[in-house]
Amino acid sequence: MEKEFDFELMLEYLNRRDYRSFRKVLEDENEVDVAELIEELPSEKAAVAFRTLPKEMAAEVFSNLPPETQQVIIGAVTDNELSEIMEDLFVDDAVDMLEELPANVVKRVLKNADPQMRRLINQFLRYPENSAGSIMTAEFIDLKKNMTVSDAIKRIRRTGEDSETIYTCYVTDRSRKLEGIVTVKDLLLSEDDTQIEELMETDVITAVTEEDQEEVVSRMMKYDFIAMPVVDNENRLVGIVTVDDVMDVMEEEATEDFEKMAAMAPSERPYLKTNVFELAKHRIMWLLVLMVSGMITGGILGKYEAAFSALPMLVTFIPMLTDTGGNAGSQSSTLVIRGMAVGDILPKDFLKVFWKELRVSMLVGAVLSAVNFIRLAITYPGNEMVAFTVAIAMFATVMMAKTIGGILPMAAKLLHADPAIMAAPLITTIVDAFSLIIYFNVAQMLLPI
Amino acid sequence: MEKEFDFELMLEYLNRRDYRSFRKVLEDENEVDVAELIEELPSEKAAVAFRTLPKEMAAEVFSNLPPETQQVIIGAVTDNELSEIMEDLFVDDAVDMLEELPANVVKRVLKNADPQMRRLINQFLRYPENSAGSIMTAEFIDLKKNMTVSDAIKRIRRTGEDSETIYTCYVTDRSRKLEGIVTVKDLLLSEDDTQIEELMETDVITAVTEEDQEEVVSRMMKYDFIAMPVVDNENRLVGIVTVDDVMDVMEEEATEDFEKMAAMAPSERPYLKTNVFELAKHRIMWLLVLMVSGMITGGILGKYEAAFSALPMLVTFIPMLTDTGGNAGSQSSTLVIRGMAVGDILPKDFLKVFWKELRVSMLVGAVLSAVNFIRLAITYPGNEMVAFTVAIAMFATVMMAKTIGGILPMAAKLLHADPAIMAAPLITTIVDAFSLIIYFNVAQMLLPI
Repeated sequence: MEKEFDFELMLEYLNRRDYRSFRKVLEDENEVDVAELIEELPSEKAAVAFRTLPKEMAAEVFSNLPPETQQVIIGAVTDNELSEIMEDLFVDDAVDMLEELPANVVKRVLKNADPQMRRLINQFLRYPENSAGSIMTAEFIDLKKNMTVSDAIKRIRRTGEDSETIYTCYVTDRSRKLEGIVTVKDLLLSEDDTQIEELMETDVITAVTEEDQEEVVSRMMKYDFIAMPVVDNENRLVGIVTVDDVMDVMEEEATEDFEKMAAMAPSERPYLKTNVFELAKHRIMWLLVLMVSGMITGGILGKYEAAFSALPMLVTFIPMLTDTGGNAGSQSSTLVIRGMAVGDILPKDFLKVFWKELRVSMLVGAVLSAVNFIRLAITYPGNEMVAFTVAIAMFATVMMAKTIGGILPMAAKLLHADPAIMAAPLITTIVDAFSLIIYFNVAQMLLPI
Repeated sequence: MEKEFDFELMLEYLNRRDYRSFRKVLEDENEVDVAELIEELPSEKAAVAFRTLPKEMAAEVFSNLPPETQQVIIGAVTDNELSEIMEDLFVDDAVDMLEELPANVVKRVLKNADPQMRRLINQFLRYPENSAGSIMTAEFIDLKKNMTVSDAIKRIRRTGEDSETIYTCYVTDRSRKLEGIVTVKDLLLSEDDTQIEELMETDVITAVTEEDQEEVVSRMMKYDFIAMPVVDNENRLVGIVTVDDVMDVMEEEATEDFEKMAAMAPSERPYLKTNVFELAKHRIMWLLVLMVSGMITGGILGKYEAAFSALPMLVTFIPMLTDTGGNAGSQSSTLVIRGMAVGDILPKDFLKVFWKELRVSMLVGAVLSAVNFIRLAITYPGNEMVAFTVAIAMFATVMMAKTIGGILPMAAKLLHADPAIMAAPLITTIVDAFSLIIYFNVAQMLLPI
């Protein structure tokens, strides 16, 4: 159901400079699809293609292009064309773009924005990264409480074209303080002469500019909002966050968690567009840290050299024990980290999580150690004590792994650190060391070594 | 900025049967907050509290309650009250509820729904789980193309109260085939006597009932829609998917991926509300599978018993090597799995990924093995050949781990399996076995064992 252009044909139109046919195909299409086509063109053609677009499409197509293509186009258009684009861009899209562009290009872009837009852009660029302010936009409809429904509808008709959403309108007083909100649904379902004051919802759920974007996301999800007002510390309305931006934030935040939980520095760019050095840089730091921890584990193992020299067979059960410990621990830490990220688990649930993991790990540990004992007793007849040693070590390892895996992410949260670092890689390393200590101590107790 | 009730006070109102004060506090509150309060009450109080709510709030509060509380309330209300709730529920919320309720309760609920609602519910319950049909709702505004803008606005005013969204309206012909869409923004910004036919967008981007919900999510994100029409195979409009449901799906799908990637069977319920046996059941299967793989790795290690008996020091480097291999591999597999989930990496990029991982792994491997060599040469003077062995094995392990980690998820996708199973746990197990083989073969070549 998505649009597929005949790419070869479109490219041919451009090659034979048949811009009219090119434009004709795109005219009725969705701006997102048009942007996708332009992105795939070779860069010298991208700029030409962009300039053939009807004026009313240009800004929206532009805001859907990746930063590299935007830069190519900015380099190819005249100052006049650039200021037309800037006029039609929403502030949040302009800010997103400027954050990616080199300084000299930013300068030219700002020079071609009108003073009002320039002022807004500069204000928005100052909000901290990942704050509500950094994802909001300034194009909303504001009403006054003494307007009637028909005044309001008239105002929407007059200013709606330039707003990101017209469906929620914001009622402000003379000092821009937010007094209430009213939806177009409320307006349409009311009599023409009703006062906005009677209709508006005054108990408004808002975000504050410096608030973390993740909190904005969870609040919008909780209340099923399609837009939420953002106010400053004096409750003055400065912008709105719309649901499309919130969805992008959700996707980014989940990706970031996946990356952190796999021991990588989070990256902002898609995998295929990130170069090899960048990728390596994001991965190497954590690998080094974990390698050093692995050395410590090796040192612990070295302490038991006498034990495994006396009974080398013991070594062959190490991978199974440490892997199972690592996996058991990561299961618990993943559930707890994700549970905290979506708000299902709160720091006050610490003891509940501990108690739950304790019981789950007893069940899981019992099953795994029983399976192990039976299997080893069959494979190595006459070595029942070795089988018993491995089974006991397995049970203790799983219990230790799951309780550590469950509580360390919560401990991190309580210490205001990012719980996501307490994920599989670090948990595995910690659990490895403990499981070796458990294993060889059980062995030294039960076996003649 | 979220609402916090004085829970103790509210409970006291209920205890002294002061329902008027209880109701007074809730009257002006958001339905989501009211549902949260009722959920926290003891269950015999929850039903009483629910019955005090003003009628116009009841259905929306009800749809925001968890299934357990819904069931308590259904058990406590009269048939009359139940059919009033059913009348005001949206079909998708009713279907979500019925999927969780025991059969005898479902029967009573359906008996108290009107025939039209009952027919729709039965139809919706038949759509496959996780399909577009399973998350859509039937309450939308349909228009005819020969209406004028003022006809359309009149129709919205008449039927809007019962629609999930009024902001996108759907133009259908007499056989319910979808002909176009028109937004309230278009309507408000046009002249009263304009025909809908002139305004409507005919090249509509739709979903099909059986389509996977993940595709619906990515299409809605791509085009920044707040609602998308769902059609059957004959292009007849059967429902709409709204952005609030899509956000829930996004969150669920990400959680599912986290769970699968940590070797668990995905669970539908929040962690704290899942009982211990259920949690254990979801975790044990994969732990068993991976434990068996760990046994195989142990068997491989057993083959080199002669080598590590001759030089027991070799054993102490095993945890560092296998852990680093596992971590290096999971980094790559996580990036690729996530990249495929959000649509940044497609199956056709197989060779690009392979080539990228090959180069990244050379860089990362070189750094890690150099650090290792220097550290070992300092710690164990006179054992330079052992240090060299470990360094070579480290380099080869990282290269192997990252290429395997990068391509196995893509191979799974190409074979129509779920790429998420090729995540950290399985990759670690596979990489463990190979890294041991590499390590001991290098050792046998370079060292006198």
